[in-house]
Amino acid sequence: MEANRSANSRLALVKDSIVKIRSKVAEFPGKMKKVAEDDPRRIVHSFKVGLAITLVSLFYYFDHLYVGFGSSAMWAVLTVIVVIEFSVGATLGKGLNRGLATFLAGALGFGAHHLANLPGQELQPILLGIFVFILAATVSFIRFFPRMKVRYDYGLLIFMLTFCLISVSGYRDEEVLEMAHKRVSTILIGGFTAIFVCIFICPVWAGEDLHNLVANNLEKVASFLEGFGDEYFRKSSEPESNKASLQVYKNILNSKQSEESLVNFARWEPPHGLFRFRHPWKQYLKIGSLTRQCAYRIEALNGCLNSDVQASPETCGNFREAFIKASSETGKAVKGLASAMRTMTLPSADCPQTTKSKNAADNLKSLLRTGLCQGIDIVEILEVATVASLLLDVLACTEKISESIHELASLAHFKRLEPDEKDGKPDLDKQKQVRQSPNSIASNHHHHIIIIE
Amino acid sequence: MEANRSANSRLALVKDSIVKIRSKVAEFPGKMKKVAEDDPRRIVHSFKVGLAITLVSLFYYFDHLYVGFGSSAMWAVLTVIVVIEFSVGATLGKGLNRGLATFLAGALGFGAHHLANLPGQELQPILLGIFVFILAATVSFIRFFPRMKVRYDYGLLIFMLTFCLISVSGYRDEEVLEMAHKRVSTILIGGFTAIFVCIFICPVWAGEDLHNLVANNLEKVASFLEGFGDEYFRKSSEPESNKASLQVYKNILNSKQSEESLVNFARWEPPHGLFRFRHPWKQYLKIGSLTRQCAYRIEALNGCLNSDVQASPETCGNFREAFIKASSETGKAVKGLASAMRTMTLPSADCPQTTKSKNAADNLKSLLRTGLCQGIDIVEILEVATVASLLLDVLACTEKISESIHELASLAHFKRLEPDEKDGKPDLDKQKQVRQSPNSIASNHHHHIIIIE
Repeated sequence: MEANRSANSRLALVKDSIVKIRSKVAEFPGKMKKVAEDDPRRIVHSFKVGLAITLVSLFYYFDHLYVGFGSSAMWAVLTVIVVIEFSVGATLGKGLNRGLATFLAGALGFGAHHLANLPGQELQPILLGIFVFILAATVSFIRFFPRMKVRYDYGLLIFMLTFCLISVSGYRDEEVLEMAHKRVSTILIGGFTAIFVCIFICPVWAGEDLHNLVANNLEKVASFLEGFGDEYFRKSSEPESNKASLQVYKNILNSKQSEESLVNFARWEPPHGLFRFRHPWKQYLKIGSLTRQCAYRIEALNGCLNSDVQASPETCGNFREAFIKASSETGKAVKGLASAMRTMTLPSADCPQTTKSKNAADNLKSLLRTGLCQGIDIVEILEVATVASLLLDVLACTEKISESIHELASLAHFKRLEPDEKDGKPDLDKQKQVRQSPNSIASNHHHHIIIIE
Repeated sequence: MEANRSANSRLALVKDSIVKIRSKVAEFPGKMKKVAEDDPRRIVHSFKVGLAITLVSLFYYFDHLYVGFGSSAMWAVLTVIVVIEFSVGATLGKGLNRGLATFLAGALGFGAHHLANLPGQELQPILLGIFVFILAATVSFIRFFPRMKVRYDYGLLIFMLTFCLISVSGYRDEEVLEMAHKRVSTILIGGFTAIFVCIFICPVWAGEDLHNLVANNLEKVASFLEGFGDEYFRKSSEPESNKASLQVYKNILNSKQSEESLVNFARWEPPHGLFRFRHPWKQYLKIGSLTRQCAYRIEALNGCLNSDVQASPETCGNFREAFIKASSETGKAVKGLASAMRTMTLPSADCPQTTKSKNAADNLKSLLRTGLCQGIDIVEILEVATVASLLLDVLACTEKISESIHELASLAHFKRLEPDEKDGKPDLDKQKQVRQSPNSIASNHHHHIIIIE
């Protein structure tokens, strides 16, 4: 009986693992499809890598190409595989790092080799060992410098590598100069092949990705704000249609790393499309960080959606309208900014959306200050007031974002919209609105309260 | 005149750049000192790298070691440089990735070489080209899979590299099996040297770093809470002593990336010190993410410190005390949790700090609900109420953190404190307190209000 049972359980285990493996294999095509659908450029990139490697390996197949380099040709294959990256900026950064580091380290290694030769054969290995130790320790330490780590980490690694290879293998290989020369030239060939394929076949520009990422994040903030007011005052009996769609802002919270690496790649890229030479990439970091600050406040605001004390939709009709209006108008204004940024057009300072959103926010502020609506439960008032001040905090944040986008627009010379694309207001009226300072708008909020009522 | 002026300006430019370079050079030792002081283990690491490379390059210097491997010995130097990393986990991960990938790709490359040989010399380069293209494209695509990217990205790169090198250079080098064998064995030697130096000379454990990082972040939350209450009700005439020290929590906001990579490294590490086999590393991610959520709310709370409507210290004596108490007691409780975590001792569920902090929070909540103090400016009430609800939100967050730390303590079998280290309460009393649910504590807050008053 016992033996039977244990045999059975073992059989069950085997069956289980077979089922698991089978399900993993069955999931694989679905996963592949998802990865490809998330960004179809990934498929193109895979083919580009295949192509670049096949191109470089031609060196081996054709006799007259092979003769020049011999077995050093393998460094070209190695370089292509290591250098080629998804975006042009990353490939260029790695390629330049590798090329420059190899060249410098080759020269230095050659010098070290000669220096170690001077005192005679006996001392040579000891001197070489000391050189290698000092250089490896120093370069390893420099790699910890934050600025070096960001831009030149790969170059430092390759510098160390090449120096050690040249100076150490030079001990055996007497034709060290020729070896260094071959190595440098095959690496140049590999690097150029990788860069050529990366730039001229469906290029993926890190700068463009960064531009879209920042604009997307702004749009996420906008759609949260557009939906939040309604969601907060929604009757709990209504179906939960919107709550999940509000959660898209969550990715913004951890976007710092990817923005920073994209900026770093973008700075290696040559001018392309609408991005000119010396495009102000660092300004994107500023906009991104402000967007994140906004998202942190939205996270706190989102927590109130699940609070136990919910505002009932019946109370405070007056306040409720002002609240929803402030939220949705600001959402629209931010959406306008995001689309202006995406299309690289100058966001107009006098756009009706911005004015509307400012007025709505001021209206909400004054309602909050002058005492809300009397006569309802104090607990509810406090809860609603908390949410409203958080919302006002978010709105203040969006104003800062707007400022930094205007700064970007002037730094990057965004193009002005054609007059016929704007609405037909007379110019004088517009100039007046532009000149209005935020304070002057704030001072006439009584007017707008009447409109809303 | 003109020529003179332009010559002068050119001279000024040259002088300027000399001054700049001089200041950069003068700054260098300071920067080096700072990098070393931030983490003295960095100096040790640099020496370790130098040592490992010098050890491996011995192959070149001694004749009887060199004979076996020939120029393949350079792969050992290359492997050490590429594999050795700051922490043991990172080195092990890279070393295992490289070793396994080289072995598998070597076998596959050898197979491909033979397969391409079958139809005859004419077709061989074409077949090899097709194999290389298919494999490179497939592996490049697989590198986009999120799970693969996190743990096996380096292995996939090396797999592609080795396959291409073996199968392509096999076209020229007839002794492809011997070459593959040499390459694999030199890589093994290099990898083992790197891992040996990394583990046995002042090892840096990623798991320990992760443990300390999470505990540090908790402590940052704690010291914000301890200081916040006082700071918020501080008279504006008093000197700004504390505000800067409250800002340390800011690093928590962007700690996700480093926590994830440390967890990833820690999972490669063997048991060491107090960290046993299958230590629940993933639980640290949970604690870290809860700490970050707490920090997002603290960011919103911190914004209120700079708000234009400040609570004056004179008003609401009653409320003020409750507020400060709730903030500082929770700060103390979180500090207790952090130190329990750091020392890997079981945090006691009945610790007086936790009870005190819960009572203080409930007291604040009830004060907020029953109407604050009447008779002061409505604007100030609303402002204070907002800050108080945000604070309560943070406190609720810390309770979740406490739960997840208790979970970690039970998963990782944290050791129990000896009885004589605890305070001398009788056991019966303690058990009662443990059994008290949060609700039962919440229901007797009237009692505590009296105490505070």
